[in-house]
Amino acid sequence: MGDHRQTRTTVEAAMKGAAAVHWDGPLRDPASRLALLRAAANELEASATDLIETANAETRLGEDRLRGELTRTTTQLGAFAAIVADGSWAGATIELGPPDLRRMMWPIGPVVVFGASNFPFAFSTPGGDTASALAAGCPVVVKAHPAHPRTAAIAATAIDRAVSAVGLPTATFQQLTGGVEVGTCLVEHPDTSAVGFTGSLAGGRALYDAASRRPIPIPVFAEMSSINPVFVLPGALAERGDAVARELADSVVLGVGQFCTNPGVVVVVDDSGFAELLAAELANRPAAAMLTPGIAASYCGAVQRLIDTVGVDVLTGAPEEGQAACVLVGADRFLDDPDLRAEVFGPLTMVVACEDPSQLLRVAARFEGQLTSTVYGSGRDRDVAAGLLGILPMHAGRLIWDGVPTGVAVSPAMHHGGPYPASTDGRSTSVGTAAIVRFLRPVAYQGVPDELLPAELQNANPLGIERRVNGTSTTDPIVR
Amino acid sequence: MGDHRQTRTTVEAAMKGAAAVHWDGPLRDPASRLALLRAAANELEASATDLIETANAETRLGEDRLRGELTRTTTQLGAFAAIVADGSWAGATIELGPPDLRRMMWPIGPVVVFGASNFPFAFSTPGGDTASALAAGCPVVVKAHPAHPRTAAIAATAIDRAVSAVGLPTATFQQLTGGVEVGTCLVEHPDTSAVGFTGSLAGGRALYDAASRRPIPIPVFAEMSSINPVFVLPGALAERGDAVARELADSVVLGVGQFCTNPGVVVVVDDSGFAELLAAELANRPAAAMLTPGIAASYCGAVQRLIDTVGVDVLTGAPEEGQAACVLVGADRFLDDPDLRAEVFGPLTMVVACEDPSQLLRVAARFEGQLTSTVYGSGRDRDVAAGLLGILPMHAGRLIWDGVPTGVAVSPAMHHGGPYPASTDGRSTSVGTAAIVRFLRPVAYQGVPDELLPAELQNANPLGIERRVNGTSTTDPIVR
Repeated sequence: MGDHRQTRTTVEAAMKGAAAVHWDGPLRDPASRLALLRAAANELEASATDLIETANAETRLGEDRLRGELTRTTTQLGAFAAIVADGSWAGATIELGPPDLRRMMWPIGPVVVFGASNFPFAFSTPGGDTASALAAGCPVVVKAHPAHPRTAAIAATAIDRAVSAVGLPTATFQQLTGGVEVGTCLVEHPDTSAVGFTGSLAGGRALYDAASRRPIPIPVFAEMSSINPVFVLPGALAERGDAVARELADSVVLGVGQFCTNPGVVVVVDDSGFAELLAAELANRPAAAMLTPGIAASYCGAVQRLIDTVGVDVLTGAPEEGQAACVLVGADRFLDDPDLRAEVFGPLTMVVACEDPSQLLRVAARFEGQLTSTVYGSGRDRDVAAGLLGILPMHAGRLIWDGVPTGVAVSPAMHHGGPYPASTDGRSTSVGTAAIVRFLRPVAYQGVPDELLPAELQNANPLGIERRVNGTSTTDPIVR
Repeated sequence: MGDHRQTRTTVEAAMKGAAAVHWDGPLRDPASRLALLRAAANELEASATDLIETANAETRLGEDRLRGELTRTTTQLGAFAAIVADGSWAGATIELGPPDLRRMMWPIGPVVVFGASNFPFAFSTPGGDTASALAAGCPVVVKAHPAHPRTAAIAATAIDRAVSAVGLPTATFQQLTGGVEVGTCLVEHPDTSAVGFTGSLAGGRALYDAASRRPIPIPVFAEMSSINPVFVLPGALAERGDAVARELADSVVLGVGQFCTNPGVVVVVDDSGFAELLAAELANRPAAAMLTPGIAASYCGAVQRLIDTVGVDVLTGAPEEGQAACVLVGADRFLDDPDLRAEVFGPLTMVVACEDPSQLLRVAARFEGQLTSTVYGSGRDRDVAAGLLGILPMHAGRLIWDGVPTGVAVSPAMHHGGPYPASTDGRSTSVGTAAIVRFLRPVAYQGVPDELLPAELQNANPLGIERRVNGTSTTDPIVR
């Protein structure tokens, strides 16, 4: 009971602080957000040694990978700073009418962020959800991930220094620690306006359900579960099966298979030994430590269950923490058993052997929502490739040709999301600058005198941003 | 039980048909959607006499108003046709990389539409939800509104003729009749991908809850409840209180007060007789028939409850169907009692008298989500107006200066939505061409060969649409 009351008190204080920042509006000044995002990138970089050492101790992902991830994280902050600077975040749309209507974006309110265990920087405390929410002008409350609490604390301190350096209120960014109760309490708090989450299907769904049951429901942008099917078409398999197997094996073991875009299923026609090739490649990769003992146990349990499943051939050895595994199953069996299409978090991939291209298309049509789907094809695969490219957008957020799904560029053209269960809202992305729209809502101004309009919508265009005026994009002022 | 089974069978057949259209993809050709939207507008116009007569018999809204509403509805179909034609629906965004990433929109899937009683054309069978979903390439299943079943049937037949004329499959557009069970069954069906709704808070929330509980949750875009506060500032009140009272009275009785943007609350400082002025104007407007006996009874009941409420002065007569009413309440009382801030559907407005401008700002800060908020001000009101314009975007989707909230232009800059309870998702609009994004989800193509890309993303830009290439808007082809 004492703990329970303590949780409520802590959450109440954090959310009241965040709400006060939202109402007082210091983040509505784009210059403040710009300064904050840049300062946060600098402060994180200033703590790089400490962050990387600590994250490596907590996640065992390796210093090289973590160095790269930190760079990606600060670059990401810079990308959001750029769209704050150029004004594109505002989506300014002006119709001179009558009626004179001018629409721009407004921050949705305090955002609660739940980071992921597998990316302690890029999808955690200083990650894309935090960056996009701050860029949108929303105060942020992070629940620190319990798998890397010290990393989270160092990152939060760096962002706190940035907040302070640019003269914003402390409650612009806050981080709480705790378990499920703190998380639920944050999502249920009336001052919370939206939630960003990266993690498991069970965790994301629980937060979605809590948010939907509120008296005032709020959106939950949860990036959850994906097996990222890869289709290796007959031409590609014949021409360069070896190279594809090596490339896929590298992708499967990346981050010890603990990537949300990890290729969990490889679909081929008449596998002609491709599964054995891939299995041999995977068996050659050394085992590595996984993020947590719980994740390692889950992974080994999942591999063992596949060993015990009738109709599934395990082509690699006994389950072992962080040791890549490969299994082979016929397409009929795969189509019949939804359990085989559930995500296994770790370096496992399942080869699905189809009898012919039409069965491959039937398999393609059966997948639930995915972050990515990949096609390896050659000139000989033209017809089946065209058929596949018509089916895959039905379930996937990103289609990759001739390349691995791991690696998600921070680009204005990126989409990292997909229909459920890949995410709770396939219309949203959690990577790339388009992620900002999750935390913005439009406000239209009708007939409002110029001097009372936000600068983004004033005739003179004092910020010099690109606006759509009567249907045409322009940075010109409006002369009336 | 027989009825129950019948409902399931009917819904199953409709949704399976819609899903087949989604998978077969005939609507993914923009030319087909363009032809359909234009043909639907023409067919509705061809049935105008029948539609208006029937709608008038069913809704008693009057032929002039209904004639105007039908024109608005066909114009709306034309506006969506225009954004299909110019390609802006696709939001094509290309980064030449590496990686080469190209993102465009993809239809979300079959959309179920629930129309409103108060706009039998513009927010019902042939209304904005249907138009935006078809423009997005989503097959549509409408549940006909039980308050105007014959109007709905004539409109559906007109759209059916359009579907047939342009050679699209019958299941591109379907309409079912029935009550709550059919509606729930439609929302729960696994092939339903999104829901559009306009109506009551209770109805919208029930559908939202049903959609959130699904194994695969889907978005519900429900436009529900709004009291559309109007702030008449001291300068405007002193300079032209009479004119403002007349203008507001006209707005309150428009459509017998059955508009979602009906001004239900008027906030003034030291009312100086303004409430009496407005009440006198309203008492002068003749009573008119309301949409249904149920709506009339609810309205009279709500007026009577206000008469019986301590601290509320009713300035007009006894409750009567469709007779405008005006009540006066002090700001302290209004701030204390959330019941006074609930929507009354009908020609009622409540004047809230504040003691000073700072109390007016406190009242402004207390409103829940609204479709609109309006300010009448003059040069003398500069300071309080600036304060107000900083607060109102926190709860409203559209701010109007010196004009009534009723009347919602179909414009690219329109926003018709607002935080809950105005809608289930304040980030979405149900009027204006931006409404299309509710039914689209992004798909990114990475490294896909040009000939396998959708036309919208191919180097040559064969459709000649505007695209954002490496950050710049252009219709030029990409030369590699």
